Amino acid sequence: MEKVEQSLTKKDTIIYSYKVVQLSKALWKMVEKDWQQWIKPFGLNINEHHILWIAHYLGGATISDISKYGVMHVSTAFNFSKKLEERGYLTFSKKDNDKRNTYVYLTDEGKKLLIETFNSYLPQNDSVLKGSMPLRNLYGKFPEFPELFSILREIYGQEFTQLFEASFEQAYNALTEAEQQSLQMKEKKEPTF
Amino acid sequence: MEKVEQSLTKKDTIIYSYKVVQLSKALWKMVEKDWQQWIKPFGLNINEHHILWIAHYLGGATISDISKYGVMHVSTAFNFSKKLEERGYLTFSKKDNDKRNTYVYLTDEGKKLLIETFNSYLPQNDSVLKGSMPLRNLYGKFPEFPELFSILREIYGQEFTQLFEASFEQAYNALTEAEQQSLQMKEKKEPTF
Repeated sequence: MEKVEQSLTKKDTIIYSYKVVQLSKALWKMVEKDWQQWIKPFGLNINEHHILWIAHYLGGATISDISKYGVMHVSTAFNFSKKLEERGYLTFSKKDNDKRNTYVYLTDEGKKLLIETFNSYLPQNDSVLKGSMPLRNLYGKFPEFPELFSILREIYGQEFTQLFEASFEQAYNALTEAEQQSLQMKEKKEPTF
Repeated sequence: MEKVEQSLTKKDTIIYSYKVVQLSKALWKMVEKDWQQWIKPFGLNINEHHILWIAHYLGGATISDISKYGVMHVSTAFNFSKKLEERGYLTFSKKDNDKRNTYVYLTDEGKKLLIETFNSYLPQNDSVLKGSMPLRNLYGKFPEFPELFSILREIYGQEFTQLFEASFEQAYNALTEAEQQSLQMKEKKEPTF
């Protein structure tokens, strides 16, 4: 880094930095807005929904896991987890193979709520998804943002992005499970003749 | 979009959406933190600094410009501009060629403050910049994020990203000017013999 910095003017670095500020702000503000709209009917804020999601796909998560994966402060992770516990969506308990840490788990009510949010997700209300369709049509797949992953790996460390990528797989499995449960709930409600 | 959506499962769309949530949140939270650290000594928050910057490189900006470029709510743009006016860093006035809209301009004090923040910017404290150096070493230039630009163009419209890109050039010119002013201020303080 030292060597390269000398070949860079301060102006170059500020301009690049400003570009990333603008891009990441414009992207995140849109993501945040769509996310809020999506889960508003369930009386959840995005931190609470993120906590339910992480606890679900990790099959139980420590406050430190939630803080790391959810990119939120430890106290934010703790306070919102406590609120979700009060509302009956989470429980705090020890793991059989780890008596030192406390894990949060989804209750049946919490699982039901999370599945309901997934069921109510409408792709047509997701701006980033809609904005990504031309790229998907062009390349036959969604963009994978290798540059962003590389930058985040440098910043947060390799372990973070590895766990990050593993989390997408876990989330996929959790969604498959949710789909099945949702189907079962539906079948119970609407028996086939 | 309609046609392609049919070939996509809801699970695919949620997982892609979740990936963008995680990436954009991790990136923005780091950008926000570094930015706050940078301008903290000047008693500014990031919205206020963003407003000064935009008003400077646009050579006067309407509240609507600030809201658009700064990706902040109109009321946020207005309230923080008013606070900056109270502190003597901004003035509200009409433009000769546009009597209908009110523009905010930097006062000399505001310009001086903005230049001081630029002078105090330290590349080694900028996580995203540091995280981007391996890519710069590999490709000989900073990443340009074409996928992100494409997505944002779809969401915010072509005019937005065009003005966005033009703003980087304007910011570059404003920084060059700031460098010269900073040099002049230095020369006044330290006369050469």
